[in-house]
Amino acid sequence: MNVEFINPFLSSLLNVLSTMAQTELKPSKPSVKKDEVARGDVSGLIGMVGPQTKGSLSITFDTTLALTIMERMLGERPDGINEEVTDMVGEITNMVAGGAKNLLGEKGYDFDMATPIVVSGKGHTITHKCEGTKILIPFTSPDGNANIEVSFDKL
Amino acid sequence: MNVEFINPFLSSLLNVLSTMAQTELKPSKPSVKKDEVARGDVSGLIGMVGPQTKGSLSITFDTTLALTIMERMLGERPDGINEEVTDMVGEITNMVAGGAKNLLGEKGYDFDMATPIVVSGKGHTITHKCEGTKILIPFTSPDGNANIEVSFDKL
Repeated sequence: MNVEFINPFLSSLLNVLSTMAQTELKPSKPSVKKDEVARGDVSGLIGMVGPQTKGSLSITFDTTLALTIMERMLGERPDGINEEVTDMVGEITNMVAGGAKNLLGEKGYDFDMATPIVVSGKGHTITHKCEGTKILIPFTSPDGNANIEVSFDKL
Repeated sequence: MNVEFINPFLSSLLNVLSTMAQTELKPSKPSVKKDEVARGDVSGLIGMVGPQTKGSLSITFDTTLALTIMERMLGERPDGINEEVTDMVGEITNMVAGGAKNLLGEKGYDFDMATPIVVSGKGHTITHKCEGTKILIPFTSPDGNANIEVSFDKL
């Protein structure tokens, strides 16, 4: 998978969080994921299906970061991961995939998105089962960390 | 979502585990998922996209059941959830979705599948973010429990 497929997801997450929650994340260098495992507390996942390829996207947040985003969006900080937080994580995942879909569509790569799924549980890990390369993009912030993982078959 | 959409997933899981791992699960009554939360230790998730609808499927296993399935398939019981186990859970998820896809295709409902994602982490929970009804199907066995959750938009 080349950088052409990574940047749309990276820039889309930065854009969504900056616009919706005045939250600036700092992206670190994307890496090809092998044994490296990203752990987080709440994750949004979405499947993507297109004529040229299929794949999956996950965005994993530390609890502290998820709660801070909620606080900035709604003015109130929840006590922990509740249904409002998982709704927000699902919505962010949908928006990031949608933003990347638009950017990739301009380059001639089309896909449709499934509905998002949100996983919560302290320190869970996510593995994309895909024949293609899996890319991990770590993000840091003073409020906690996030990770994007994206993989496509045949790219 | 009517029973026509539930049974293909239910029968497909029973069939896959019976054929591949000589494991018989006992399905309980499917329910419309509201506040009820299914917890498990390792889950396979897959997105589905079709011209009429889109949705998502998850299959969540207790660790003991996942390890027993591995033991019956490979003759050796892993010490815990490792990459071989998550590979197997991803493969089972793919096969269950594929089996349901065939059965639903015969009824005129077509969808394509994204690539599976596997989540591991003790007692994690899964929420399908979908406008349509979410159906939870619990399965029990002497080796541990499993849960299917499936949801489609607009059905």
